[in-house]
Amino acid sequence: MKIARFTEHGRDGLAMAVNGMNFKGIYLDKLGVLGDLQAALEKGPEAIRNLTHALSLGEDIDLNQVSLRPPLLSPEKIICIGLNYVDHSVESGFVTPTYPTVFSRFNSSLVGHGEAIERPLTSEQLDYEGEIAFVIGVGGRNISREGALKHVFAYSLFNDASLRDYQTRTPQWTIGKNFDRTGAFGPYLVTADELPEGARGLSLQTRLNGDLVQNGNTDDLIFDIPTLVAELSAVMTLRPGDVVVTGTPAGVGAARKPPLWMVPGDVCEISASGLGTLRNPIVAAG
Amino acid sequence: MKIARFTEHGRDGLAMAVNGMNFKGIYLDKLGVLGDLQAALEKGPEAIRNLTHALSLGEDIDLNQVSLRPPLLSPEKIICIGLNYVDHSVESGFVTPTYPTVFSRFNSSLVGHGEAIERPLTSEQLDYEGEIAFVIGVGGRNISREGALKHVFAYSLFNDASLRDYQTRTPQWTIGKNFDRTGAFGPYLVTADELPEGARGLSLQTRLNGDLVQNGNTDDLIFDIPTLVAELSAVMTLRPGDVVVTGTPAGVGAARKPPLWMVPGDVCEISASGLGTLRNPIVAAG
Repeated sequence: MKIARFTEHGRDGLAMAVNGMNFKGIYLDKLGVLGDLQAALEKGPEAIRNLTHALSLGEDIDLNQVSLRPPLLSPEKIICIGLNYVDHSVESGFVTPTYPTVFSRFNSSLVGHGEAIERPLTSEQLDYEGEIAFVIGVGGRNISREGALKHVFAYSLFNDASLRDYQTRTPQWTIGKNFDRTGAFGPYLVTADELPEGARGLSLQTRLNGDLVQNGNTDDLIFDIPTLVAELSAVMTLRPGDVVVTGTPAGVGAARKPPLWMVPGDVCEISASGLGTLRNPIVAAG
Repeated sequence: MKIARFTEHGRDGLAMAVNGMNFKGIYLDKLGVLGDLQAALEKGPEAIRNLTHALSLGEDIDLNQVSLRPPLLSPEKIICIGLNYVDHSVESGFVTPTYPTVFSRFNSSLVGHGEAIERPLTSEQLDYEGEIAFVIGVGGRNISREGALKHVFAYSLFNDASLRDYQTRTPQWTIGKNFDRTGAFGPYLVTADELPEGARGLSLQTRLNGDLVQNGNTDDLIFDIPTLVAELSAVMTLRPGDVVVTGTPAGVGAARKPPLWMVPGDVCEISASGLGTLRNPIVAAG
């Protein structure tokens, strides 16, 4: 099942496609008490079933004819993992981690598929980072690695676009990862049942203006998805709708000589087997 | 005006005190469409006035007879500033910052006044950090330093309790700052009109089992509150209810020889002129 959030004629809606069929969509204001996806995730599996049943009765919708938004607009947590592919950790000058490196994004940084990633006026060092994200369904604390995948509702793509000068201006990366409109999330969620277990073996590619600039595979994650669920939940309660962004493979612009920055007019695309393509133009902040 | 969130007999409520008078309280379920404080902040000044008017008609309440919760349970952002006092930056082995060092907390780490700060099973290095927090009222982007204080709704106290081994296990501090039940926030919000402009000149003290372990003053903030509002909003849109935790002065346990960790049975108190005392016992995770 694929689930997208769209906006059309000023109305927000959800769209769903099952087994590669066409998307069916419904405006949120017609869903009434079924609420949106975040609310259904919080209520649990029955609410999800009710929501997806309602969506299955929606009208055919062409995602190319509407504007997509981030599949979840205001997750309680956006947990980002750094240095989670050996080749990227090496190119960034770090030792290979033995424990996940964690930072976070705020909701204010999110954009959806097709929306512009914004280069701020104050920096030219806008870099791409293609990543796989996953969304927690049933929350929990101290989840075992063995039981971890039962807590993963869906997967998606993420462009963790970073302002490198801000990222390295202090010991903490957070500020360089949180400029408004720099975190692209989408195009839609793909539920776990439509992907290999733990999203293993997914080819993950980033293209800038059509040129392949990152080419990784989730088999190379240092901390795979069950490990991330276990390690994160050993520290904090994971909640329905929490998003974990799993890290980027080698090839980022900052590690190139000369560096390769995204500039207004560029188009950046992240794609992975089964997850579609997350495509975002780059614009200058107004 | 002081605003507290409490729970009593399984019901959540808000309490308010004006000009040092007694607190008046109302259960949230009696406030109806006025909603809670977060909702009123999002709706704006008129909703805040309606909410506080309703609270002023509430019943007398003794805050010592109810359980307090964090004044805001689920802020969209909890932005934490590190190394914001010269003496703490020096004791931590960092150069004095020329730009704010930012990391974040998730809502899952919050506890209120009187609630236990939890030492996890996996670490003994639980350290206190007494801090001043402020809450955004009217949001915005690219707010000028000169106009910044118009965006600050209220102030409070925060104990940014940290697991030092986890904090320094990777290049990013986030994980050591986000164990469940380690971020104490309260006891209540104090609106900006009841404090010196920009909360300047506030004496900020931390006591562990009654012993004074930190003794700072907000006049020594490297980045004062107007500067933080301006610098943060140059990067990201600040939203109503966002919480900024402004950093801790010298005296943390990790910088002592031998180190001073908080252990189950301890009581940690943060106090500042005009903001009351945030008191939390330490317990072992169950």
